[in-house]
Amino acid sequence: MEAFAVPGLPEIEAGDDLAALVANRVSLREDDVVCVASTVVSKAEGRTAALSDYPAGPRAREIASRLESVTGEEKDPRFAQAVLEESTDVLMDAPFLLTETRFGHVGVNAGIDRSNTGGDDLLLLPKQPSESAERIRDGLPVDCPVLVTDTSGRPFRHGQRGVTLGWAGMPASRDWRGEEDRDGHELEVTVESVVDELAAAANLVSGEGSGGTPVVVVRGFEFGDHDGSQELYREVSGDFVRQALRGWSYEGR
Amino acid sequence: MEAFAVPGLPEIEAGDDLAALVANRVSLREDDVVCVASTVVSKAEGRTAALSDYPAGPRAREIASRLESVTGEEKDPRFAQAVLEESTDVLMDAPFLLTETRFGHVGVNAGIDRSNTGGDDLLLLPKQPSESAERIRDGLPVDCPVLVTDTSGRPFRHGQRGVTLGWAGMPASRDWRGEEDRDGHELEVTVESVVDELAAAANLVSGEGSGGTPVVVVRGFEFGDHDGSQELYREVSGDFVRQALRGWSYEGR
Repeated sequence: MEAFAVPGLPEIEAGDDLAALVANRVSLREDDVVCVASTVVSKAEGRTAALSDYPAGPRAREIASRLESVTGEEKDPRFAQAVLEESTDVLMDAPFLLTETRFGHVGVNAGIDRSNTGGDDLLLLPKQPSESAERIRDGLPVDCPVLVTDTSGRPFRHGQRGVTLGWAGMPASRDWRGEEDRDGHELEVTVESVVDELAAAANLVSGEGSGGTPVVVVRGFEFGDHDGSQELYREVSGDFVRQALRGWSYEGR
Repeated sequence: MEAFAVPGLPEIEAGDDLAALVANRVSLREDDVVCVASTVVSKAEGRTAALSDYPAGPRAREIASRLESVTGEEKDPRFAQAVLEESTDVLMDAPFLLTETRFGHVGVNAGIDRSNTGGDDLLLLPKQPSESAERIRDGLPVDCPVLVTDTSGRPFRHGQRGVTLGWAGMPASRDWRGEEDRDGHELEVTVESVVDELAAAANLVSGEGSGGTPVVVVRGFEFGDHDGSQELYREVSGDFVRQALRGWSYEGR
């Protein structure tokens, strides 16, 4: 298996055809997985907005005011409003705003990015990343999977890791249930989130920042003869950490 | 960057020299990262134990009894005792036992494996995986980093992913702080857990079970001109999910 960045991509703008831009720069193969950073998917889809599009309601003003007092930093209630409008559930409101997006991903600020766009503009996550992945995939000359990727922090462990937000052309995970190890014992590891692992591999190659390359091809990954599953985002009913967060409130470090 | 499994490794036994076994099968290079599954590190280090080594104390009996009533499955209190003895903190005691190991990793059952060993034997995680990584690295003919890897579930997202438990010869993460994106904005993603991403990439190649290949070489990863950090495991003080779990108790689905 290898992973390489797609070279020479231009700055992506609204309306750009990402599939064509990639296909013109790489001879894609059927054993490729095309990993596209959500930032460029959002840019191509015109998922930008202005803070002025989000006049703050009472909940957003309350959240921003609490965040200001907790962090000591100025917080724009219109940004909190934008996060709320992109979200279906607020998991934590301090010391940072952790929500579930409309497509099921749990992330800080609903993944809204203020760093990659000019002025006060916001870059929202793609509305339905798996549909974005499917659209890009439809435009490719080769039948290979497409992932829309991002980076995300996580409990218990420091740092950000590549994760997948949307996928098309392959299952989200592979299932080892019922298989046995060398000693004939049934495996305890049952479901492997291959799309997150592919996003992690891609992130090692893509980097961030001004030298960043937003599309990475992973070549030669073998899914193998396993069942697949389309599950990536946990339901609240099976997620004990989410249940615990519901009864919890930040009270300072 | 590429990743490939080390071919032809024998079943690993206590006392085996993992460094020599790998070096005899791969022409290692300085741009390699050698990713070794914790199971074979534990086997080579003789980190096996028997349930009878762990006469259950009152806490273990209480935990096992609660787990039995919650899951409807028989639970051996001696196994709970083994988990407690490998742990410094219990984060959840039902519907599964989630603890912090003595070296800082948060995992189910302190990572103790009953599937990879014969009979009632237990396979414990390496005592200090970074020291294990350093020992393997010392035995390699080439100066390249070594990771001791495992798989782990996580909140919010389904499935297991490759993670690193111990590392030597490279930092755990790379630091993008102060760097700017193409538009001149400071990056929001600041610290990337490269050792976890490398473990994820390795896990895509290694597989599990009877066909599993427990050592993977990642070749050509470029750390780049960044600061590194040795932080991988969060402190409780900065981990709000752990704080929330402290006040939470499982009460059924």
